[in-house]
Amino acid sequence: MPADAVTMADIRAAAQRIAPYVHRTPVMSSRLINAQAGCDIHFKCENLQKVGAFKARGAHNAVLCLAPEQLARGVATHSSGNHAAALALAASHFKVPAYIVMPENAPASKVTAVRAYGGDITFCESTQAARESTLADVCARTGASFIPPYDHPDVIAGQGTTALELAQQLAPPPDFLLTPVGGGGLLAGCAVASKALLPDTRVIGAEPAGADDAMRGFRSRQWQPQLAPDTVADGLRTALGQLNFSLVLDKVDDILSADDAAIIHATRLVWTRMKLVIEPSAAVGLAVVLQHPRRFAGKRVAIVFSGGNVDIDRLPW
Amino acid sequence: MPADAVTMADIRAAAQRIAPYVHRTPVMSSRLINAQAGCDIHFKCENLQKVGAFKARGAHNAVLCLAPEQLARGVATHSSGNHAAALALAASHFKVPAYIVMPENAPASKVTAVRAYGGDITFCESTQAARESTLADVCARTGASFIPPYDHPDVIAGQGTTALELAQQLAPPPDFLLTPVGGGGLLAGCAVASKALLPDTRVIGAEPAGADDAMRGFRSRQWQPQLAPDTVADGLRTALGQLNFSLVLDKVDDILSADDAAIIHATRLVWTRMKLVIEPSAAVGLAVVLQHPRRFAGKRVAIVFSGGNVDIDRLPW
Repeated sequence: MPADAVTMADIRAAAQRIAPYVHRTPVMSSRLINAQAGCDIHFKCENLQKVGAFKARGAHNAVLCLAPEQLARGVATHSSGNHAAALALAASHFKVPAYIVMPENAPASKVTAVRAYGGDITFCESTQAARESTLADVCARTGASFIPPYDHPDVIAGQGTTALELAQQLAPPPDFLLTPVGGGGLLAGCAVASKALLPDTRVIGAEPAGADDAMRGFRSRQWQPQLAPDTVADGLRTALGQLNFSLVLDKVDDILSADDAAIIHATRLVWTRMKLVIEPSAAVGLAVVLQHPRRFAGKRVAIVFSGGNVDIDRLPW
Repeated sequence: MPADAVTMADIRAAAQRIAPYVHRTPVMSSRLINAQAGCDIHFKCENLQKVGAFKARGAHNAVLCLAPEQLARGVATHSSGNHAAALALAASHFKVPAYIVMPENAPASKVTAVRAYGGDITFCESTQAARESTLADVCARTGASFIPPYDHPDVIAGQGTTALELAQQLAPPPDFLLTPVGGGGLLAGCAVASKALLPDTRVIGAEPAGADDAMRGFRSRQWQPQLAPDTVADGLRTALGQLNFSLVLDKVDDILSADDAAIIHATRLVWTRMKLVIEPSAAVGLAVVLQHPRRFAGKRVAIVFSGGNVDIDRLPW
């Protein structure tokens, strides 16, 4: 994908399109966390977004970009996570089906969430090949449009509305903007918006050390596969989208990693100090700041809390 | 205490006094919870207050009402809960000591919290008599002023600022306002403010069925002791303050109870659906609404989330 495949105009259009369906999430801060981190942090609370994650933005934008005759046949994806729930919610507004292919070993809580939003689930074996072939079958049978979880311009433009809102909510602009990076839709979209609106803000991807394909790819300037991801941040185990990679190379200033101990520490800090439920993937930005204190000392920092969907019966500590 | 011991003027003065030190907390809602409850609920998020509880309001007001020569000798209380942390924080602004008497079996997390806010802890045996005599010794030795956790006009006026803010934040006014009731400071203060500002709003105390002294007292119009409290809502095991009782009788429309299963269900709903950490005591208002659906069907309801201080290593489920 060329680096201009998603523009600021696309993100502005996305913001207008999705406004009736998603929340303008608040920006919060904590004096205690600032004291620990040694900087001035502003958290964009996408854990308070519809379906509990920023994924609502991209899914709604992608669905709203479909032509009416496409939309009528429904949408489809393979995902066991937040994108599936977001797509089911987006489809429900237009009373069209959302076909969700899920591995048969998906956690019951995720199955329940997708069903609660009206998703039509097809189970398959828990391999990438089975997911893709089952999805292809579903799309062929129903005529539904495949909406990928991150590697698509309309999805990226939707996720970029997070940074557009942040730019409106934060004055003066931050020195740094950090978002988690898994597939890269949030990071790429936010980087496009940030470079257009906040030219002096450095955009940093925050990645678990146990799933650091994006950092390795960014540094080598060669897309890298995600080999054997091992991290508590379950939303970030996926590889950086190949299509996203060029946007990240073009717009992102750096990618930094944090280890799982720091991610769990950051998650606990937010639960106990800010009284916000975030999922471990959402804590990676704060974990990076806490693990690289000199880089951020005394700075004004914006961090996206990407989501809050966690099984409260199986906490990661 | 006469029923005019706390007036709307006291609450307005408290609001002005404490404004530099406490948060104006947000009001949030959840479409999913509204659908389950069958009514339109607006939650006042005192879990996001300083020290994670509304107690910051009363403690700051009481400290700010002291004469300078009293304030200089410090403040004292016996508490193992949110009031102790709130008083320590309030004292710290004026660089005066906060002497906190705590039972020697107090949970480590509470001790840590009080220390983090600079409280000067004296441990004692875990009996009411030991707490009171130790507190008397501390006050005699230091000249500190005793700031009780709920049974005091300045504390009640401070807690009442919660409803003053709600009245400013919510339009049109709610049909019902529910607050948890333990010692009764929050309920009494909010009832005074609500009756002055929202004359058509019915004020309801929400109490755990396993610690329902306030409900029994309200219905019999005789103060009742708390005999053997047994509830997960640890902040509400205390008896209704005798001084508060007359305010509750005069200003509150009803007291309703919810059982522990409903309290835990409500707590989990808020964690999972609203992504907010609340303590079980804070969930009693929602639990009451869910257990009395016909009473609230189709109504506009305001509920105070009283706090968010919970040990995330020992969840109540």
